[in-house]
Amino acid sequence: MFKVNENYLKLPGSYLFSTIAKKVNAYKEANPDKEVISLGIGDVTQPLAPAVIEAMHSAVDDMASAETFKGYAPDLGYEFLRSAIRDNDFKARGVDIDLDEIFVSDGAKSDSGNIGDIFSVNNVIAVCDPVYPVYVDSNVMEGRTGTYNPETERWSNVIYMPCTKENNFVPDFPEQTPDIIYLCSPNNPTGSALKKDDLQKWVNYANEKKAVIIFDAAYEAYISEDDVPHSIYECDGAKTCAIEIRSFSKNAGFTGTRLGYTIVPKQLVAEDGTALNPLWARRHGTKFNGAPYIIQKAGEAVYSEAGKAQTKEQVAYYMNNAKTIVEGLKSAGYNVSGAVNSPYAWLETPEGMTSWDFFDFLLEKANIVGTPGSGFGPSGEGYFRLTAFGTYENTLKAIERIKNL
Amino acid sequence: MFKVNENYLKLPGSYLFSTIAKKVNAYKEANPDKEVISLGIGDVTQPLAPAVIEAMHSAVDDMASAETFKGYAPDLGYEFLRSAIRDNDFKARGVDIDLDEIFVSDGAKSDSGNIGDIFSVNNVIAVCDPVYPVYVDSNVMEGRTGTYNPETERWSNVIYMPCTKENNFVPDFPEQTPDIIYLCSPNNPTGSALKKDDLQKWVNYANEKKAVIIFDAAYEAYISEDDVPHSIYECDGAKTCAIEIRSFSKNAGFTGTRLGYTIVPKQLVAEDGTALNPLWARRHGTKFNGAPYIIQKAGEAVYSEAGKAQTKEQVAYYMNNAKTIVEGLKSAGYNVSGAVNSPYAWLETPEGMTSWDFFDFLLEKANIVGTPGSGFGPSGEGYFRLTAFGTYENTLKAIERIKNL
Repeated sequence: MFKVNENYLKLPGSYLFSTIAKKVNAYKEANPDKEVISLGIGDVTQPLAPAVIEAMHSAVDDMASAETFKGYAPDLGYEFLRSAIRDNDFKARGVDIDLDEIFVSDGAKSDSGNIGDIFSVNNVIAVCDPVYPVYVDSNVMEGRTGTYNPETERWSNVIYMPCTKENNFVPDFPEQTPDIIYLCSPNNPTGSALKKDDLQKWVNYANEKKAVIIFDAAYEAYISEDDVPHSIYECDGAKTCAIEIRSFSKNAGFTGTRLGYTIVPKQLVAEDGTALNPLWARRHGTKFNGAPYIIQKAGEAVYSEAGKAQTKEQVAYYMNNAKTIVEGLKSAGYNVSGAVNSPYAWLETPEGMTSWDFFDFLLEKANIVGTPGSGFGPSGEGYFRLTAFGTYENTLKAIERIKNL
Repeated sequence: MFKVNENYLKLPGSYLFSTIAKKVNAYKEANPDKEVISLGIGDVTQPLAPAVIEAMHSAVDDMASAETFKGYAPDLGYEFLRSAIRDNDFKARGVDIDLDEIFVSDGAKSDSGNIGDIFSVNNVIAVCDPVYPVYVDSNVMEGRTGTYNPETERWSNVIYMPCTKENNFVPDFPEQTPDIIYLCSPNNPTGSALKKDDLQKWVNYANEKKAVIIFDAAYEAYISEDDVPHSIYECDGAKTCAIEIRSFSKNAGFTGTRLGYTIVPKQLVAEDGTALNPLWARRHGTKFNGAPYIIQKAGEAVYSEAGKAQTKEQVAYYMNNAKTIVEGLKSAGYNVSGAVNSPYAWLETPEGMTSWDFFDFLLEKANIVGTPGSGFGPSGEGYFRLTAFGTYENTLKAIERIKNL
């Protein structure tokens, strides 16, 4: 008689963005004449860079002839892509990463959801609050989070590190010592970024406590300030305590193209002497079969001279939207932060409105979709996320509508 | 202090095909003048069908313009692909599958490795022996298999169902009752296929025992006999006991293109009343972010009239290789089975040679790479797998070399 994984039954509600999509679709069906603008889910709108398009056409042609056809990819990803990653994302910043520390994948969501597999169920995780829902949800599924208290909206075995305006959205060291620490910088959803000094403190803390940091750097391309590190390995000692997850979704518009990678340094070793790199290699080789050749070629093109220039322009386009959002909201009287080193503006909801109240209010009164802060964790209550990933025209229109509310 | 998942430490050696790749690479480096032919890993060699190439070029162009650009895909996969799957793979065979029972993924390896996530650790699995290594290895990682006995090469908490020439490679019902039963038909590695009557018996058995069958139908396109079902849902009652996993790797040459899907029927409910479909939907939505749009369009093209004709030709090409292998081996005096409803020939190693002995012998004396049967499980000892996925020229050459040994 088969039995299900009972941890799944503990999950309250559905995945945040699925819930939002259902609400929005219901609204659209009931109001087919309304033009709904989404500044909600962090999905990009600009087409792929010409260099990427060109590389993909060429890779498709490779698949059309027996001489150049590609079957299964190498376990860790093609070397042409891993070399480009090593040289551009790390060596160019003074960081040495070996090719066999780079694991190419189908995206940062999969990696951040799956990375827990190589850790014991008996680790205590710490997350920022609010936080990208995948970190907590995937740990719930693996049975690491204890029981859920619907009153406090917290799991009994998760350490929450509130990030609010009171601490300038920088997490403080928790009272209880965690085993696994999830950090995302530039942050989703608050849009803030850890300065080099702050991140170095976390690296020191993790090394001292023998904790591991899962560092999600999906938004590093949006960093505009000099003292914000793009990689955690810019901090001394990070290789003995940190795994870094990267994405092509936001820096190159690959949300529907799917590519990411994870760095597991060989120096990263548990107290019992087990190195994490071969464990992740084993998971990667057993439960995954590589990103498509065509997509890996697309990733390589992101690092070409043309690709770099073109994707930089895309990022600038979105950051111009971010500026438009922040300035517009401020002039409309909102308190807003973020959007300087990230594509996310984080605003305080008007007095007396919860995050979901404000979601409904914006959807109904201005036909704008945003993301309720409380969907990211209890300390997100009273906040709301708007993304810069729309078109400029829609962003402008949305901000005008908000101003006119 | 973080702790690793100790189940990973129980895994003996590395993933079978990684081991083989390392051995072959070492041989090639030491013997650069030798022309090594691989009939080892089940990797295809024929280019993608023209209809697929055309669809991918067109999809790449979609990604080049803001009007047709695609971001995140719908959670379950694009409806254009799921409709084509439903109509062609099921409706055409008299099976009704709903669109929300189809989960598009990056391939059958990921799905067969990840499907265990939704089941309790306290289930006992049954596998055919020999078997595709991912089923057992992924269950080891999840802690479901007990301890490994290197003498018997068996896990204490896994039910092995030997499939040898003694039972004509059809598994018998085990003495101990399993909770989760992995069946692969047409089978990898033995190349045999379950007849409709045999599979119906397994469906009846699973329903009676309240067990779930994970049915891997990755090789269904190679079925040539009428009484072999392409889908388990052709059997009465399968929807209350079976999950089916499908792949585009072998029917359309997508090993490096990555696409698959899994069917989780809504009627499939555990004894405690929990339906599996929403659990898999939750996993899919939380730990995965969809197959690339371009690849899903490629998958759709497989079901176009041109795509169907072209991929059928590819399958025929490989099946001609299969015939060449079987006839050649027989004329060389080998006992060989399979390769009628599958691309795999399964031969008995010569008297006194283990599977790995024969691997080394073939590599060194004939420069041919095959797969040792024992790598798939203890009952595979004394057998050896050759695949039909090479080019015709290489297949012919390889068989000549074997004949001349």
